[in-house]
Amino acid sequence: MSKYVIALGGNALGNNPKEQQALIKKAVKNIVSLIKNNDDVIISHGNGPQVGVINLAFEDSYENEDIPYMPFPECTAMSQGYIGYHLQKGLRDILEDEGIEKKIITIVTQVVVDKQDPSFKNPTKPVGPFYSEKMAKELMKETGEIYLEDAGRGYRKVVASPKPLEIVEIETIRDLVNNGHIVIACGGGGIPIYKQNEAKGANAVIDKDLASSLMAQELAADILIILTNIKQAELNYGKPDAKKLGKIPVSLATKYLEQGEFAKGSMGPKVEAAINFVKSGKNKKAIITALDNLDNALKGIDATIICDENC
Amino acid sequence: MSKYVIALGGNALGNNPKEQQALIKKAVKNIVSLIKNNDDVIISHGNGPQVGVINLAFEDSYENEDIPYMPFPECTAMSQGYIGYHLQKGLRDILEDEGIEKKIITIVTQVVVDKQDPSFKNPTKPVGPFYSEKMAKELMKETGEIYLEDAGRGYRKVVASPKPLEIVEIETIRDLVNNGHIVIACGGGGIPIYKQNEAKGANAVIDKDLASSLMAQELAADILIILTNIKQAELNYGKPDAKKLGKIPVSLATKYLEQGEFAKGSMGPKVEAAINFVKSGKNKKAIITALDNLDNALKGIDATIICDENC
Repeated sequence: MSKYVIALGGNALGNNPKEQQALIKKAVKNIVSLIKNNDDVIISHGNGPQVGVINLAFEDSYENEDIPYMPFPECTAMSQGYIGYHLQKGLRDILEDEGIEKKIITIVTQVVVDKQDPSFKNPTKPVGPFYSEKMAKELMKETGEIYLEDAGRGYRKVVASPKPLEIVEIETIRDLVNNGHIVIACGGGGIPIYKQNEAKGANAVIDKDLASSLMAQELAADILIILTNIKQAELNYGKPDAKKLGKIPVSLATKYLEQGEFAKGSMGPKVEAAINFVKSGKNKKAIITALDNLDNALKGIDATIICDENC
Repeated sequence: MSKYVIALGGNALGNNPKEQQALIKKAVKNIVSLIKNNDDVIISHGNGPQVGVINLAFEDSYENEDIPYMPFPECTAMSQGYIGYHLQKGLRDILEDEGIEKKIITIVTQVVVDKQDPSFKNPTKPVGPFYSEKMAKELMKETGEIYLEDAGRGYRKVVASPKPLEIVEIETIRDLVNNGHIVIACGGGGIPIYKQNEAKGANAVIDKDLASSLMAQELAADILIILTNIKQAELNYGKPDAKKLGKIPVSLATKYLEQGEFAKGSMGPKVEAAINFVKSGKNKKAIITALDNLDNALKGIDATIICDENC
């Protein structure tokens, strides 16, 4: 019996509720074999597209005085309810069909970040729609947020992506896992709040892989699985001499990361999250693979597997 | 030591995130005395204005093709994340200031309803904005939802408010309460799903007081507290001979309810929820009062208190 933290990519969840429910149904099918095996399963998920769409829906309605401005921490909280509901319902429906009784629960999760995190001075994660320079300047004045020119296509809001430091609800998550629950937590990297104990949350979106790695460390998980849209990380990605990475020791993964082999904001944080986790204890393993390749990946096929030196 | 289920009215939570955080800060201050007394506290909340605004934000942006149609169950799930985040953060901040260590958690909660519930054939709960007859007819065709003329002011979407039958996550809530957690659950009456085991949730908004009463019964709570914007229920409400109700036995409350003394969709379901709870066991008590009168109400002052015959 092993303990798995599984991080689902937000991009794998479609663009509307109908697509999301269908894709989640497919996604959770891949997880059922672990549950049948009596392994502990903790699920986290990204929220990039979803938190963008929620924020955009409120922003797009700004001329309607009934609709308030909705900051990012609140939008992430909403996305945890939205995606968590579909995950817990989808998983429960499938387990019921298979005659497996399991308690499944979504936890609204807050994650602590530091107000001094360098990413706040240099927010670079673009979210939401494009605006004209004039409109962007008005919005900056009105909201205090930063808009940057994005590759000649117009101005976009950018948010910080600070490092996750502490998961506020970790003890509850641990209690529930130990008590046999399948727990869905740290959705969208968690709702970012300041360790400086401010009332307002942080206007930021935490990287969900780094938050999932932190959760896996705190729960003393055995295996961290990061599910994305490609089967394996690659060296020289996108070039003719690209080389897929299979099973590699953490020292080599660290070397590749430091050499800048993995794209920032994409494969980079995934490999970083995997390395952090594997380094946190003995006999830990991190798997990066495609959502529909989970079964194979667990057998070591067509996946990037980062493990300690003697694995 | 007693077990309290406290239902906060959604109307008491303001119209935007800033107002909501400030009002919640005030609201949870009233609950702290119970927590200090080592009583078990379970909190639920309404979501009428919030679920309306979330739905409206998506609807108002319908011309933007990036923004999908968002059904009510998903909007309620979002409101659970949104309000739950503010509640758990607000309560934690205050308890930390007072040096009290408590685990506080929001549970994304699904509540089962019957597809045959009569309210689905006769949805009457108006939500969201007003539309012209032409626009309403277009929306009805597009979404399959019902719009009704509302008191000469235009057409509004109406949703069903079916009876809550079962709280899917009740065992988890019970485990967490027994384990010393302050649990926030059944937000907005819960995300309505069908007992007929359909993938899609029910396009409805469950009455939060009836759901809170069900939760209080399932948890074998001692006291159900329904916090609203007036201190006491009244007979002949709004008339010159109006009479405030203090402590009354459940048989009398039932008689008044049957006589139609309490407004439907307003005080009616609150009294009904209170009656259901008090009838569910011995020595149970339900209190209906204003949010800022909780301290007095617990001493029996200026509150409607429904209790069993020999209380």
